[in-house]
Amino acid sequence: MLGSPGSEARPSAAERARTIAGATNAATLASLSADGHPWASLVAYGLLDGAPVLCVSNLAEHGRNLAGDARASLSIVAAHDGPDPLDGSRITLAGSVARPSVTEQDAARAAYLNAVPAACGYVDFSDFNLWVLRVQRVRWVGGYGRMDSVTGEQYAAAAPDPVAPAAAWAVAQLNTDHADTLADMARAFGGYPDTDTAVCTGVDRYGLDLRVHTARGVAYSRVGFPERLDDAGQLRSAAQDLARAAERLRPQAP
Amino acid sequence: MLGSPGSEARPSAAERARTIAGATNAATLASLSADGHPWASLVAYGLLDGAPVLCVSNLAEHGRNLAGDARASLSIVAAHDGPDPLDGSRITLAGSVARPSVTEQDAARAAYLNAVPAACGYVDFSDFNLWVLRVQRVRWVGGYGRMDSVTGEQYAAAAPDPVAPAAAWAVAQLNTDHADTLADMARAFGGYPDTDTAVCTGVDRYGLDLRVHTARGVAYSRVGFPERLDDAGQLRSAAQDLARAAERLRPQAP
Repeated sequence: MLGSPGSEARPSAAERARTIAGATNAATLASLSADGHPWASLVAYGLLDGAPVLCVSNLAEHGRNLAGDARASLSIVAAHDGPDPLDGSRITLAGSVARPSVTEQDAARAAYLNAVPAACGYVDFSDFNLWVLRVQRVRWVGGYGRMDSVTGEQYAAAAPDPVAPAAAWAVAQLNTDHADTLADMARAFGGYPDTDTAVCTGVDRYGLDLRVHTARGVAYSRVGFPERLDDAGQLRSAAQDLARAAERLRPQAP
Repeated sequence: MLGSPGSEARPSAAERARTIAGATNAATLASLSADGHPWASLVAYGLLDGAPVLCVSNLAEHGRNLAGDARASLSIVAAHDGPDPLDGSRITLAGSVARPSVTEQDAARAAYLNAVPAACGYVDFSDFNLWVLRVQRVRWVGGYGRMDSVTGEQYAAAAPDPVAPAAAWAVAQLNTDHADTLADMARAFGGYPDTDTAVCTGVDRYGLDLRVHTARGVAYSRVGFPERLDDAGQLRSAAQDLARAAERLRPQAP
């Protein structure tokens, strides 16, 4: 049953993009001023099947811009600790905005209100419009040297990682209380039998990212779950299963 | 000497904009793709007399965009707690990028490295260029219903608030340990002699913002320092002076 830890499965760029988009409610919109100048401005957004829903006033500069030229893009930045912002993950969703169709209207309004509850005070004001960004292409950047492009279709078809909301907690937990277990996993399934210590740097529905320290130096490794997780509630037992399997493979003292 | 607390002096929108720009090193750039599509992307920046300095690769989409069309804007968002991102402060700096002049080159490079130390690994790579955003106009938004426009000249001439780095700490300190003092200030200098309680919502070089609770309801007030502060180190004694002056004016029991 645990025959396949070490699986190379990882989230696709489209899945990572959907996960980043689903993790927050703030983005920066690039729109076009009447003279064609690009205009960057903070917006809040909800998601309608992955498509960002904006609600902006016609009186605001970006509201006038969208009404004048539908071309737009959104930059969404994943939560990130550390002094270098370029070390973190972010996406650009590029496309054109459109007013929600009649059949979308209620769901778009609900999506925005779900993400921005305070908008109940203005979402129905006559000078505010809902806009849906029809995503045509996506650029995902995962940090220095990690990047990929995704089509609008790939983005729309991808699912956000259900494990993401629990990932930061799980990483902290593993590193604080289960350092020996991580080293066991790296030795047994991560391809580094000479691991001294291992640090978990990320968790997703497909497995764990590890930074492995050996006498030969530092390396980055991956330990996959035997099966893709479909719920954050599966994370604990999946990690425990991996840990037990790795312990069973621990070399015994002679 | 404390004759003028209650001064109405507040930071100008230009000062607020310079303060926001000086408080972080991450922004979102809006640039133009070859087909004129607006492109939003995360960048790091340093400041050269308030002008943002970027360092981007010619191989990156936004680097190609800037090389093809110099028009650009930057959105910078102030640190903000709370679920509604639109409740916080942010600015848009709009203008055109240019390569640093020969005389600016060293200072621009140093400004970027000062803000992004990790850039020492790539700032001199041949595919990376420094760009200085020549700011032509600024839009400041301080939250719902608080906004103003600023010219590039006003922005360049304004100074960032030297008190800003200590402001969050001072606000927390005042609210945690000096709630009675804040109520005294609101009664004596804030225009609300019937204050029951007062909460400090902001501190700047010119004074304190207060949320005042009275039997009549909630109000927002301002208590100014007698003189503009020029150093964060002056904050503690200025607040203490205000507190003593307010205590002296406290109504005595008959």
